[in-house]
Amino acid sequence: RKKDNRMFSNRGMSLEDDINVTNEFYLETNQAVIHKKPTPVQIVNVHYPKRSAAVITEAYFKQASTTDYNGVYKGKHIDFEAKETKNKTSFPLANIHEHQINHMQKVIDQQGICFMLIRFTAHDETYLLDARALLIFWNLKQSGGKKSIPYDMIKNQSQLIPFHYQKRVDYLTAVDKLYF
Amino acid sequence: RKKDNRMFSNRGMSLEDDINVTNEFYLETNQAVIHKKPTPVQIVNVHYPKRSAAVITEAYFKQASTTDYNGVYKGKHIDFEAKETKNKTSFPLANIHEHQINHMQKVIDQQGICFMLIRFTAHDETYLLDARALLIFWNLKQSGGKKSIPYDMIKNQSQLIPFHYQKRVDYLTAVDKLYF
Ligand SMILES: [Mg+2]
Ligand SMILES: [Mg+2]
Repeated sequence: RKKDNRMFSNRGMSLEDDINVTNEFYLETNQAVIHKKPTPVQIVNVHYPKRSAAVITEAYFKQASTTDYNGVYKGKHIDFEAKETKNKTSFPLANIHEHQINHMQKVIDQQGICFMLIRFTAHDETYLLDARALLIFWNLKQSGGKKSIPYDMIKNQSQLIPFHYQKRVDYLTAVDKLYF
Repeated sequence: RKKDNRMFSNRGMSLEDDINVTNEFYLETNQAVIHKKPTPVQIVNVHYPKRSAAVITEAYFKQASTTDYNGVYKGKHIDFEAKETKNKTSFPLANIHEHQINHMQKVIDQQGICFMLIRFTAHDETYLLDARALLIFWNLKQSGGKKSIPYDMIKNQSQLIPFHYQKRVDYLTAVDKLYF
């Protein structure tokens, strides 16, 4: 009984894994073309062995300048960031980098669809928060306001993402409601 | 005199460098948000020194599963691949991987704007070829036809990209003509 529950709930997999599985399903069923961007890496040294593949022997992680995911859905550009928190009562804005906020603002200005997927692991809930709302909370913080978004506020301002076995984070359902 | 010519022509910089400079200009002037995707790397070993940044000590290049660039322009999703050839009379289709073709087909199906930027270095010319046209040539090749696209055909079927000092590959001019 416990096993079944685990199989059909969000618990156990990371938000990113769940999104990747979902994107794979969207891709195979021709619903959307959305990919995770590769981790940006600064390559310093590469070794080229004679009879095998090139080996990168020195590289460093670079700060990502944009968001985690982007792609196309019904002709529109989709761009989003995914964040998990163990916090029960709020989402700490320290989780987000300023360059990500700047990128989101630019995507909005260019009329792209832009949002954040937030998972509260303690509640086993994932929400879609429109980037415009996120920017309001961010700007309040910048002008001396709260350093986090209260859970109740997110519950009110966001779309709860339904869970399906093959679409573990079925965010397109929320995208349809909010943007189409 | 020679120096001036070099400064104001395409010669000397790679197509990718030119596109990156152009995208930077588009970004700063709020015309579009288009980025090069990071090179996908399979990270095998990471060393965490005590007082400095993590060092990747073993990693391998992964085959890219999509195209080089994507982003948003006037709300629409833009997706493209960039290719250079030294060939004077044709563009060899062997330059393109099948998974890139599959990706382009999926982007088109999802109503995204999809194309290839082709530079003939010998002619110092860069063309925008719509992905639908590229797919025709690709499918002809697959069914036993030509293994390359003749230069004259590209000249006829594509948009020549204008060159500007700050917009070294001003492809949005061609995008406006073709898709808006
Ligand atoms: Mg993230
Ligand atoms: Mg390329």
